Amino acid sequence: MARDERGVTAQSEDFAAWYNEVVFKAGLVDRGPAKGTMVIRPYGYRLWELLQSEIDGRIKATGHENAYFPLLIPESYLSREAEHVEGFSPELAVVTHAGGKELEEALVVRPTSETIIGEMMAKWISSHRDLPLLLNQWANVVRWELRPRMFLRTTEFLWQEGHTAHIDEGDARRETMLALDLYHEVARDLAAMPVVAGEKTPGERFAGAVATFTIEAMMRDGRALQSGTSHYMGTNFATAFDIRFTGESGREELCHTTSWGMSTRMIGGIVMTHGDDKGLVFPPRLAPHQVVIVPITRGGSAAVEEAAQQLAQRLRAAGVRTHVDARPQLTPGFKYNDWEMRGVPIRLELGPRDLEAGTAMMVKRLGDEGKQAVAIDSLPTVLPGILDEFQEYLLARATKFRDEHTRVVDTWDEFAAAVSTGWALALHCGTPACEDDIKAVTAATPRCIPLEGDPTAGACVRCGAASAYGKRVIFGRAY
Amino acid sequence: MARDERGVTAQSEDFAAWYNEVVFKAGLVDRGPAKGTMVIRPYGYRLWELLQSEIDGRIKATGHENAYFPLLIPESYLSREAEHVEGFSPELAVVTHAGGKELEEALVVRPTSETIIGEMMAKWISSHRDLPLLLNQWANVVRWELRPRMFLRTTEFLWQEGHTAHIDEGDARRETMLALDLYHEVARDLAAMPVVAGEKTPGERFAGAVATFTIEAMMRDGRALQSGTSHYMGTNFATAFDIRFTGESGREELCHTTSWGMSTRMIGGIVMTHGDDKGLVFPPRLAPHQVVIVPITRGGSAAVEEAAQQLAQRLRAAGVRTHVDARPQLTPGFKYNDWEMRGVPIRLELGPRDLEAGTAMMVKRLGDEGKQAVAIDSLPTVLPGILDEFQEYLLARATKFRDEHTRVVDTWDEFAAAVSTGWALALHCGTPACEDDIKAVTAATPRCIPLEGDPTAGACVRCGAASAYGKRVIFGRAY
Repeated sequence: MARDERGVTAQSEDFAAWYNEVVFKAGLVDRGPAKGTMVIRPYGYRLWELLQSEIDGRIKATGHENAYFPLLIPESYLSREAEHVEGFSPELAVVTHAGGKELEEALVVRPTSETIIGEMMAKWISSHRDLPLLLNQWANVVRWELRPRMFLRTTEFLWQEGHTAHIDEGDARRETMLALDLYHEVARDLAAMPVVAGEKTPGERFAGAVATFTIEAMMRDGRALQSGTSHYMGTNFATAFDIRFTGESGREELCHTTSWGMSTRMIGGIVMTHGDDKGLVFPPRLAPHQVVIVPITRGGSAAVEEAAQQLAQRLRAAGVRTHVDARPQLTPGFKYNDWEMRGVPIRLELGPRDLEAGTAMMVKRLGDEGKQAVAIDSLPTVLPGILDEFQEYLLARATKFRDEHTRVVDTWDEFAAAVSTGWALALHCGTPACEDDIKAVTAATPRCIPLEGDPTAGACVRCGAASAYGKRVIFGRAY
Repeated sequence: MARDERGVTAQSEDFAAWYNEVVFKAGLVDRGPAKGTMVIRPYGYRLWELLQSEIDGRIKATGHENAYFPLLIPESYLSREAEHVEGFSPELAVVTHAGGKELEEALVVRPTSETIIGEMMAKWISSHRDLPLLLNQWANVVRWELRPRMFLRTTEFLWQEGHTAHIDEGDARRETMLALDLYHEVARDLAAMPVVAGEKTPGERFAGAVATFTIEAMMRDGRALQSGTSHYMGTNFATAFDIRFTGESGREELCHTTSWGMSTRMIGGIVMTHGDDKGLVFPPRLAPHQVVIVPITRGGSAAVEEAAQQLAQRLRAAGVRTHVDARPQLTPGFKYNDWEMRGVPIRLELGPRDLEAGTAMMVKRLGDEGKQAVAIDSLPTVLPGILDEFQEYLLARATKFRDEHTRVVDTWDEFAAAVSTGWALALHCGTPACEDDIKAVTAATPRCIPLEGDPTAGACVRCGAASAYGKRVIFGRAY
């Protein structure tokens, strides 16, 4: 066997090592040859497809249409929006030669598509009747990474990027929040990630945005993961790309634009929100296999294998994603460990004696209830509910963990202690210099100003100046 | 109005101009800024999504799994297979700078992924139990185009590429044919394109393949469009990338690999197979809108608009993709022309008098049956069947066109005449020099040796030498 049969490093011992081992050993990912690139293996890609299909359905249901824009963008496009080029320049991959010749103008591999989509919007929009223009693209993007981490920071990743143009600020801001809500729901209801929605401070804004909103998740090491962002661009890109419309009054005006994205980074978020020392724990609604059946066939029992396949078919007909592990060369014990490590929510063990009794042994991934004998005939009826409960349990557990690792702090010592294990809710003066100072000392950054935070004011936890934003800010170390 | 209200150039007048006008005017595509790139607009992308979902379902149903491999490939990878690098070198886009620095080794933007997937297969396969390895990827690829044509030849296009590894030649060849059959069915049953399946002659093989199979479609100007290809690679890539397995006997052996792809080129194929002088004609099974309802609301009749929306909902519930054109600023006549140009199979006109009579006026895209009054209440029941008939009619019409433009020829004069308007079925000696000669004189190339051709032999239609292949070859000018 090529597989390493040992387990993974304990989370408490070395969380980073645990993460790296588990994403590789579980067959989610492999390293690509070019710096920081990744191969998403079938087991990881299936999870992405399930997530993608849910996001895509929600994007379409809210009136957006998919389109596809070119990968290669003239270098000069990026320079048209000054903050945008400054933000992305260090991360660009640049095509200088093509078709056997040096190009007159170099092309960048898209790090994001505001510029090229802005150029097309300018062409397609002429009247207020063309607005809102609600576009979305599923695509790969490239941002050169010096310190890559699989799924979290990779040179190439997959995402959707919504790009919309609107008649005024009000409509564009509504869209920005609609996308943020969509991400919030996807994270909570599908990934069982209890994210906090909020606005980024000016220092953490997207390059070129007037306002950036985010959903922030807490990983099991207490760090934050920015899991989706939605930007109100004001008229910045409309000015740079000349996106104008003739209003009802006949006057020409600039559009207000937005953009918003969610990426394969979510896979890393799911791993680090729910995983434990045995490996992955996948939320049922996104698990590639919700149930794995392990037939116990000492010496090869055709009856047991057949019963396993029949049960699988009945479960699939009941809408349960079911896999039968029929690998002849492996022991049941090996398979139990393997599927635990790979995060399958429910395991069903089926041996000759179970078959005689008309039952299967059910084991939930968290293992806290031991093995239960369940009547085979009842499984198609009861499993969907058991999976729903498992999904709810994961969300509740992650919410509890997040709340236990989030502290309201008013002194610097409390702040430093809080961000060493989780998040601090603190008053802050809002100046970039003070943010930088905090980061230098604690590695913590402002994650967001929570939308649902209570109004309050006082002295900055670091410098003592008057607080900004009218509410507390979440600080934490982040991925 | 920004839209140009004039029609399109007649096909008979200038087919290339017709094509170019129609793909832009119908809103399928726009030009990207970098040479030969395209923007796939929502109306074109929706068709691609429908095709994609059908292909993806069939790929999964035959046991393949999706994965994702990096866009950027070290330049040296391509050189490992000598024919492969020779075939693709002239078309490569090369990243020489990234992250603000010159790279030690340049990266090519994938023109296809045999090399990088070969490298990973070598890592993942160790035993015969790992075979067959059946992978598929949905991705963008870049091949620098000097003479781009939207959808047909563009610098960047979207496709799926299947890559599989097998225990022996027999199994790999079965896979090659399985993929070819899948493409054949997709083209025939969804795109209503009566393609011919066959093998490419050695001069037309994929760079690095032992055998290349293709489906060839005939466009309405008589030219051929290669619409999907499936390659048996022998052990060429397995040798180059060291893809080996230990057999049951314990001996180490090379895998036999395949690859196969279908792309956004199919959109161009659909346009040129079914379109006419009024514009596009979409086969119902892939049409973004199968039915468009045009409410006739002189002075704005709320009742008519409401009835149109209600009818649309009932049709959607019956599985019919239905669009209501409620644009207030346009006349019904403009909308009729617009949707005819955009290829919608069925138009329903609904005015106040129709509503009173409980009917809608139905007009089929080909317009050959005029307008028919149909009871509104019957539409959800009868329309699916009408769309099926329309689909079948398009396939029958295209088959008739293809057969009328394909001639069995035995003399050079007949050959030259046949390839000026369509395809020639001719005996050929099989030498590349003679193929080149034919191409130089007539612009025709061997499209394929049809799988279903009758056995025959004789003198080469061009040089008189003994014929090869044991059957006639299809020659034609091609896109």
